Amino acid sequence: MEQKSVVSGQLSEEKTSEQVKLPASRKVYVETNGSTVNQNKHNLRIPFREIALSPSKEMDGSVVENAPVRVYDTSGVWTDPATKCDVREGLPALRRDWIVGRGDVEEYEGREILPQDNGYLTKGAEEIAKANERGNLEEFPGLRRAPLRAKNGACVTQMHYARKGIITPEMEYVAIRENLGRQAEYDHLTNAERSDRSSLNHQHKGESFGASIPTFVTPEFVRDEVARGRAIIPNNINHPESEPMAIGRNFLVKINANIGNSAIASSIEEEVEKMRWSTLWGADTVMDLSTGKNIHATREWILRNSPVPIGTVPIYQALEKVNGKAEDLTWEIFRDTLIEQAEQGVDYFTIHAGVRLPYIPMTAKRTTGIVSRGGSIMAKWCLAHHEESFLYTRFREICEIMRTYDVAFSLGDGLRPGSIADANDEAQFAELDTLGELTKIAWEMDCQTMIEGPGHVPMHLIKENMDKQLEICGEAPFYTLGPLTTDIAPGYDHITSGIGAAMIGWFGTAMLCYVTPKEHLGLPNKQDVKEGVITYKLAAHAADLAKGHPGAQYRDNALSKARFEFRWEDQFNLGLDPEKAKEFHDETLPAEGAKLAHFCSMCGPHFCSMKITQDVRDYANAQNIEAEKALAVGMSEKAAEFVATGSEIYHGNVPDGSKERH
Amino acid sequence: MEQKSVVSGQLSEEKTSEQVKLPASRKVYVETNGSTVNQNKHNLRIPFREIALSPSKEMDGSVVENAPVRVYDTSGVWTDPATKCDVREGLPALRRDWIVGRGDVEEYEGREILPQDNGYLTKGAEEIAKANERGNLEEFPGLRRAPLRAKNGACVTQMHYARKGIITPEMEYVAIRENLGRQAEYDHLTNAERSDRSSLNHQHKGESFGASIPTFVTPEFVRDEVARGRAIIPNNINHPESEPMAIGRNFLVKINANIGNSAIASSIEEEVEKMRWSTLWGADTVMDLSTGKNIHATREWILRNSPVPIGTVPIYQALEKVNGKAEDLTWEIFRDTLIEQAEQGVDYFTIHAGVRLPYIPMTAKRTTGIVSRGGSIMAKWCLAHHEESFLYTRFREICEIMRTYDVAFSLGDGLRPGSIADANDEAQFAELDTLGELTKIAWEMDCQTMIEGPGHVPMHLIKENMDKQLEICGEAPFYTLGPLTTDIAPGYDHITSGIGAAMIGWFGTAMLCYVTPKEHLGLPNKQDVKEGVITYKLAAHAADLAKGHPGAQYRDNALSKARFEFRWEDQFNLGLDPEKAKEFHDETLPAEGAKLAHFCSMCGPHFCSMKITQDVRDYANAQNIEAEKALAVGMSEKAAEFVATGSEIYHGNVPDGSKERH
Repeated sequence: MEQKSVVSGQLSEEKTSEQVKLPASRKVYVETNGSTVNQNKHNLRIPFREIALSPSKEMDGSVVENAPVRVYDTSGVWTDPATKCDVREGLPALRRDWIVGRGDVEEYEGREILPQDNGYLTKGAEEIAKANERGNLEEFPGLRRAPLRAKNGACVTQMHYARKGIITPEMEYVAIRENLGRQAEYDHLTNAERSDRSSLNHQHKGESFGASIPTFVTPEFVRDEVARGRAIIPNNINHPESEPMAIGRNFLVKINANIGNSAIASSIEEEVEKMRWSTLWGADTVMDLSTGKNIHATREWILRNSPVPIGTVPIYQALEKVNGKAEDLTWEIFRDTLIEQAEQGVDYFTIHAGVRLPYIPMTAKRTTGIVSRGGSIMAKWCLAHHEESFLYTRFREICEIMRTYDVAFSLGDGLRPGSIADANDEAQFAELDTLGELTKIAWEMDCQTMIEGPGHVPMHLIKENMDKQLEICGEAPFYTLGPLTTDIAPGYDHITSGIGAAMIGWFGTAMLCYVTPKEHLGLPNKQDVKEGVITYKLAAHAADLAKGHPGAQYRDNALSKARFEFRWEDQFNLGLDPEKAKEFHDETLPAEGAKLAHFCSMCGPHFCSMKITQDVRDYANAQNIEAEKALAVGMSEKAAEFVATGSEIYHGNVPDGSKERH
Repeated sequence: MEQKSVVSGQLSEEKTSEQVKLPASRKVYVETNGSTVNQNKHNLRIPFREIALSPSKEMDGSVVENAPVRVYDTSGVWTDPATKCDVREGLPALRRDWIVGRGDVEEYEGREILPQDNGYLTKGAEEIAKANERGNLEEFPGLRRAPLRAKNGACVTQMHYARKGIITPEMEYVAIRENLGRQAEYDHLTNAERSDRSSLNHQHKGESFGASIPTFVTPEFVRDEVARGRAIIPNNINHPESEPMAIGRNFLVKINANIGNSAIASSIEEEVEKMRWSTLWGADTVMDLSTGKNIHATREWILRNSPVPIGTVPIYQALEKVNGKAEDLTWEIFRDTLIEQAEQGVDYFTIHAGVRLPYIPMTAKRTTGIVSRGGSIMAKWCLAHHEESFLYTRFREICEIMRTYDVAFSLGDGLRPGSIADANDEAQFAELDTLGELTKIAWEMDCQTMIEGPGHVPMHLIKENMDKQLEICGEAPFYTLGPLTTDIAPGYDHITSGIGAAMIGWFGTAMLCYVTPKEHLGLPNKQDVKEGVITYKLAAHAADLAKGHPGAQYRDNALSKARFEFRWEDQFNLGLDPEKAKEFHDETLPAEGAKLAHFCSMCGPHFCSMKITQDVRDYANAQNIEAEKALAVGMSEKAAEFVATGSEIYHGNVPDGSKERH
């Protein structure tokens, strides 16, 4: 894939992922050096992004260094200058040795790739040649490994290992990653500091609504969470390029970005770049929702280049194979599609097995009926055949496939509400009951499982969704789309849904599926993908803060400290989008000097609230007495002192400018 | 003010307010025709915006008209083509007769406007001439009325009238406005419809946390709410141009937009255009937070042209009068500034009277100290003088001024948290206690009062703010800034705060002060103002929905119905930002025909989930049996029927395209 094609069409004004360098950031690794925890004694290298900070300048002229801040990094080795990556070769197979080393998988020839896998039903050579010409159907040119599968009768899911008491390298990797590379001692050290609001380690006691978030995540904890189904580590044995991550209510809240071409717009190149782009800004998983032509080829490009788990909705591709006629779908075609995608390495499948025939008429009186594409495909099939959905009747057979490759279930909510009016209705909750029933079957068969959730829900009805899901699905991770909290803002649905996402994340949702500003209106371009990812990153982080996730507040504290001290560049760099922050600042005060100045554009150089607070602090310190005691001392005496030193403290014209108005 | 100057600098790429025409919208008025409720028998004309809809096309080819949707309109007669408006003349004095007609006010000469009112301390003729040349100090050229004040000893506040049992025209106006012009019967008619999710009148039962929201707002209800201090109608007798509106937890949640020049950037013209711009998009009140030069002149332009209440922070101007030296502030200068602004017509004053001397040291150990500009000015004064704040000690004298002009208090939270770390701390809640104490004094003197709130607060600590405020301040309206739910997203703080705003609005906050994407970084331009206003409109609306505000869901239902029926233009036009919605749609599918098409870009013309739902519905209808019963009938028989009619139902290639992926 050449640069010229990556930057094409509506993307042309955007930088490529390659061109974005997050300022003051560098890739760092925490290395385990043959940890004894992990039975295979692999040397794990867990990646983080480290943001360097400038020193603080104290009022007395002294300089105090600020430790760099380490943040979770989803961008893979793409952002590691020490690793040479090429989209045409794909990423290194990080997990291959771990997978093969367990001795329970075998290579096999795999399924032959057919023209219809890419949507060419007539197998017309002409059609394919034409597509090739347009650059839309270039096959991934890198290494094509033979697929792996579980040896006869074996189960290769992380849940299976966990239940046997095994700590896999994946689990240890996740533990270190979730701790942001902190040492266990960190927590002991900071217990005393937690209540000191001026300490970077200050953290509010959260409200987690019954979650069991540990102070420090150990590999044993990860294993136990996976064993009881409360977390999943989606990583297909045929996607060894992925860096292990966990989805569960007792871990950091994750976000998913949807990409995917459609019959109307976009190309393979754009989709691969969207995947890199979304993980660069923080997507923890990516769903490829392609429809139309070249689904198989697109997915191969994405998988071979993706450091994060990839999810799909296999019924989309199955539908293409029957030329879009839902009633022509069969179990055999669907099953074949699952195997096709499992062999490629898809990490989780959305399967709308809860859309049962008896529930479909419950949607007839809705304002917006069935809005889930997968849900409506199955509804159409059920109505046409007047038969129970084959996804439901064949569920155990589907489990057999999932456990053979360790594909995780994402049980789709095909009857989710598509409008505020339809929230929390009979159809939705009937389906949820079935998803709970299917979760138990999946767990019986050691399949990793998460549950998808709404949709459009007004704020006061959100918690009911979470509470029911936890109860009915035995704390299997919830994976929600928004929810949108009002329908009246098309063009701003990343925000209407960001509100609901932050709230449901707080209540216990493990992963938030992003919504872009284009929701309901069109296909997101790169700018929309970024806007959606950043909105959901901040929503997920707000949820972590509210849950009281250990260490989550550190970055807020570091950024606020930088803000307070007018370390402008540090403020930008600690944010989720340093470029935009800097650009916004520079619109008002473009001069380079302004970023060093002790004032900002809101109040100008004449007066600054932050500066005054510094005076309050300095004053208390200078008197060498506790601030509280200062007031006990004779007022007039102190007043005289203050006025006397005041003119120096304010440094003539230099100091001022305020952060907030009012 | 000429067009050329309105569109200047960074605004040049934006349309002016004049140039924006909301599509399919027209101004309508509900007229009272000498209502008997209002003792003065004024003919009230309450403005709304009515959005015309296209008809629905049923599957059988019939056409059903859709009634237009009426929405709250804050844009004033600027958007009434029947009224000729000129920024150089100002708006018509809508309320003048009502005010004068009460017989308790008198004209008087008023205070002389001094050069220092505009920040020219040296009174240098040269400096003023220079400013004039730049076009920054043109005095408002329209009619200059003599100011009004209460006759000796009288009180002219809406609270005063309410407590005497009087229903003012303002109260009646508010009642009709809050009902969106609905008739009382509407509610009786819809009781039965409320549970039918396919009805436009469907509405979820809300959770209002003890609010007392009536099904229908009567003038008596407005009076009672104002009398007990649970709502305010901010309208200075010297701002007769304003259209009455209410702020209170039992009314629709309102939003405020801040504008204001500063020492660094922007001009009078830009600020007036920002006021019009923000009310065009839905700001219910506007605060003019100007600092630096020309404060008085800027404010005059804004007030004479504003259909919404204008708020200010008088201490900002007072500070300019002492050349930015907080310690030089005096009660006399502050008092003089209050009168200056009251005579101009400012509708509410933010007064940081809760920043008491003993609380200041409580901020010394904060991460971000005092971030409120007003709060830090007063903190500096208190420290310099080692005296209690004159805003606190002179509070009753301030009340005397407020009741003479009916300026409402907005008791400022000068010690609000400026970071997640500092949320809900001792300093913040100490100040809130004082604001409660001051509320009681203000109420004793019949002064309308609201209370300002934070700031930066993680989600799980938001409700404590609301609960404390309701209790301590006796349900006086809460007026909050955000709160921001995380500090790590500079450039996206309209969203970090929109999350908190929606939540606290749900919990009971009466007005949300917007935050723009530029928060913490720079001065908002027009694009930022619009982004902030729309974000807060959707947050306020999400709060109304969650509270179960009667009729609030109607617009969501109408939009969702339009979406479901592929009435694209209606979907755009019912949204908060029709232009952006249309633009987003057209990016992917630019053809005019696509907006009439029964598919969208997400799935293309080949498959559509919404279409399938229509099939579910049609199928149930066609069989002329209840959808639920359909399933009880023999399955295979029905299946045969469905397949037989199926090819017709799907209309070849025309129908499909989906709204939501997965």
